[in-house]
Amino acid sequence: MNSLAEVIRLVGIEAVVPPIKNFVVSGVAALEFAGQSEVSFFYGNRYRKYLEASKAGAIIIDATNAHLVKGLAIVASNPHAAFARIAALFDVKPARTTGVHPSAVVADDAIVAATASIGPHASIGARSRIGAGTMIGPGCVIGEDCQVGEDCELVARVTLVARVRLGQRVLIHPGAVIGADGFGIAMDHGHWIKVPQLGGVRIGDDCEIGANTTIDRGALGDTVLEEDVRLDNQIQVGHNVRIGAHTAMAGCSAVAGSASIGRHCLIGGGAGVLGHLEVCDRVVITAMTLVTHSIHEPGEYSSGTPLMDNRSWRKSAARFKQLDTLARRLNAGDKE
Amino acid sequence: MNSLAEVIRLVGIEAVVPPIKNFVVSGVAALEFAGQSEVSFFYGNRYRKYLEASKAGAIIIDATNAHLVKGLAIVASNPHAAFARIAALFDVKPARTTGVHPSAVVADDAIVAATASIGPHASIGARSRIGAGTMIGPGCVIGEDCQVGEDCELVARVTLVARVRLGQRVLIHPGAVIGADGFGIAMDHGHWIKVPQLGGVRIGDDCEIGANTTIDRGALGDTVLEEDVRLDNQIQVGHNVRIGAHTAMAGCSAVAGSASIGRHCLIGGGAGVLGHLEVCDRVVITAMTLVTHSIHEPGEYSSGTPLMDNRSWRKSAARFKQLDTLARRLNAGDKE
Amino acid sequence: MNSLAEVIRLVGIEAVVPPIKNFVVSGVAALEFAGQSEVSFFYGNRYRKYLEASKAGAIIIDATNAHLVKGLAIVASNPHAAFARIAALFDVKPARTTGVHPSAVVADDAIVAATASIGPHASIGARSRIGAGTMIGPGCVIGEDCQVGEDCELVARVTLVARVRLGQRVLIHPGAVIGADGFGIAMDHGHWIKVPQLGGVRIGDDCEIGANTTIDRGALGDTVLEEDVRLDNQIQVGHNVRIGAHTAMAGCSAVAGSASIGRHCLIGGGAGVLGHLEVCDRVVITAMTLVTHSIHEPGEYSSGTPLMDNRSWRKSAARFKQLDTLARRLNAGDKE
Repeated sequence: MNSLAEVIRLVGIEAVVPPIKNFVVSGVAALEFAGQSEVSFFYGNRYRKYLEASKAGAIIIDATNAHLVKGLAIVASNPHAAFARIAALFDVKPARTTGVHPSAVVADDAIVAATASIGPHASIGARSRIGAGTMIGPGCVIGEDCQVGEDCELVARVTLVARVRLGQRVLIHPGAVIGADGFGIAMDHGHWIKVPQLGGVRIGDDCEIGANTTIDRGALGDTVLEEDVRLDNQIQVGHNVRIGAHTAMAGCSAVAGSASIGRHCLIGGGAGVLGHLEVCDRVVITAMTLVTHSIHEPGEYSSGTPLMDNRSWRKSAARFKQLDTLARRLNAGDKE
Repeated sequence: MNSLAEVIRLVGIEAVVPPIKNFVVSGVAALEFAGQSEVSFFYGNRYRKYLEASKAGAIIIDATNAHLVKGLAIVASNPHAAFARIAALFDVKPARTTGVHPSAVVADDAIVAATASIGPHASIGARSRIGAGTMIGPGCVIGEDCQVGEDCELVARVTLVARVRLGQRVLIHPGAVIGADGFGIAMDHGHWIKVPQLGGVRIGDDCEIGANTTIDRGALGDTVLEEDVRLDNQIQVGHNVRIGAHTAMAGCSAVAGSASIGRHCLIGGGAGVLGHLEVCDRVVITAMTLVTHSIHEPGEYSSGTPLMDNRSWRKSAARFKQLDTLARRLNAGDKE
Repeated sequence: MNSLAEVIRLVGIEAVVPPIKNFVVSGVAALEFAGQSEVSFFYGNRYRKYLEASKAGAIIIDATNAHLVKGLAIVASNPHAAFARIAALFDVKPARTTGVHPSAVVADDAIVAATASIGPHASIGARSRIGAGTMIGPGCVIGEDCQVGEDCELVARVTLVARVRLGQRVLIHPGAVIGADGFGIAMDHGHWIKVPQLGGVRIGDDCEIGANTTIDRGALGDTVLEEDVRLDNQIQVGHNVRIGAHTAMAGCSAVAGSASIGRHCLIGGGAGVLGHLEVCDRVVITAMTLVTHSIHEPGEYSSGTPLMDNRSWRKSAARFKQLDTLARRLNAGDKE
């Protein structure tokens, strides 16, 4: 639709080297698949093997690697972000109409902005408010006393159970459940009794929450995601957790109740953080690591053992059981 | 609403020390946030730092620690349970009306008790029964041949697929799927063929099942949760599993097919139990542990490695691969 | 309903030893529960303890073990597959009517085959197509530009978000979300910006997808499951992943973005594969293993440590931290 020059102007990229070619950009594609009317990108070294042979019309790249591009290089200080901006020009958004679908059920005392869209089979509970420009997709259930800000999108089949407040531009993918009861139980004479979960959930502006992710509401006080927190799919966030701004969590990770995660953290896939811990700002947790104590220093943290063929692994695993004995023997040998 | 004296009477707590003050209790709150008209609680030692400075009107605490309270101590043998009972007085339950919402779809031969509530966009399949006082929330799907007991609550978007029987007072949170096909496949000449899942699921009285948790129905015979089993969010329970009474499982844990878990067990977050194993009563499994063999002795069990900074962890992980060689060398050295 | 002879003929089993008895088969059951009119099966050695005492009318078994059967042995080269075929004769399928339920919402330009069934509270988005004989269960949401092949079954509350193409005979269990945005974010001046997810998802013939499993659509190009891939519950498949034909993944496993899994692989429960890796054909990954590098040789792979009582585990875990030091000391001692 747009010429390359216009595309570049729209997203504000620094420079083009060599500035010799222009064409109508038909789309974006990966290096190995891009054609002459498409824009591709390169960052990291993982796909260097595709760089030389790429037929892309133009390749977004950082200055250091620009000389590797045979054709047209679009030099950007942050190629990933530049690509994201260009790709957004080619995104196909679902059709959106304002108003409440006839099959939706809205409580009498709920307030839905005139420019909001409530999809088929959605329901909005008592005293809840839906902000301007927000889309509540098919099959969503908004419970009681919830507030959804402006320009949010709940794609489909999202549940906000009770006392959930979303900021502006919050994006929630299907199957996510926000504001269910936290897991509060107390043992009493051999039976569990339920600890009521009286709090809510507060989610800041520009957060994104993945498919089938669950965020429980607080027992006392709220569970909180600060602004620009990015959660992938199938994540579990326990009651009264706090997650700092700009933190991202990969799929299947989990944070147990009352833990606090700092700002600008990266939590790897399948990683877990035990309850009541504190993790400071700018911590990276690698995939499937279990965080068992609070972390007070920024940096990267891990647990687990390396991948091995099963036969070798069995030998190492058997020795793991003997580690203390082996170490004692070694220490004793040293003393002889 | 109620005076402290009345609150205490309602929940049957042992004693108050000193018995000198009474006030209208406005609510419950955590130690660090509670005001003079609120009740708070203390157990464990984690929040001892907040105890002294707390402005709570009264603090529920055990006798041993009661002397630490500057203000009013409500002495209870089980402060957590006592707090749960008091907090329940302040819980806000969603509005509930009896009857079938006009948008719900109920099969002709399904039986819904007059005092049950069937929410918007719910559907009830053939030959299913919904007991007295039970609430089926918005968007729930009850399949065929299911029985839901009395005073149950399926909060929203819960699915009972087929042949699921719930006892009394079962609470199920949004997104849970009970009674889907177990994962039964047989390899046959290079292709998988499906093993039909002919059984059902039986869930005992007073069970609670978390958001987006899945419990498959049996291949032959039923998957069983005995009474008072408490499952957190995102848990996977395979076909023909049996979970004993009063066992609690934390978020993201999983039990593979045909395994049997005893009574009064605690399964930590992200832990897994392999198929066909038996775990006896009163076993504690720590978070993210993999149970690879049956457990016949009560106690606490673990696997995994401790949390380390990534640089140190890499060194230990590399040595883990060499463990058998290192151990052999040490043994050989001993023999010299 | 059918005589044993007819049942055997229907599923094409090799031989019966001794060929002396026939009866009307009332159903199938496990060895320890089967009665005289029921068929049971034996494979592996796990349930050998039940074999001798079984009251089953007939037992499906391989030739090697047939002599262990006191009663009637149905000898099959693949007892598991033979049992699956016989059990299918006794499966109770939910009632299915063709046509669109009055409560369903279908876009004007969506195309639904006359023999398809669209259940209560389902919605079908613009330009989507539903094939002949396919069942879209209650509460399913089919977004825009999706294609569902023939004889598929989406049991209930399944979401296809956008640009999802299913082959023939695909079975998807409740709560699954296919085609949500992949987790694409780029850091830009301290804030995340979203990388548009422009691709789709392609799922081959005869795939089965478990309850609450999530499969994201591609960022550029498609996420692909080849034919006959079998996914259990609560699995996460990232954007642009490719999973080869006949691969099976157990519950709670996950594959991160752009990873490629071969054909005929078995991925254990809770296992994870990091992004951008390649796993070749016929690889077995044991439960809760983290795959941190590409695998180019067929075989079995593992990580983790064995299950231990917590007291012993704490000792080994403490020594794990010292492993590099211990190994250096041992090496130094060798050199003396």
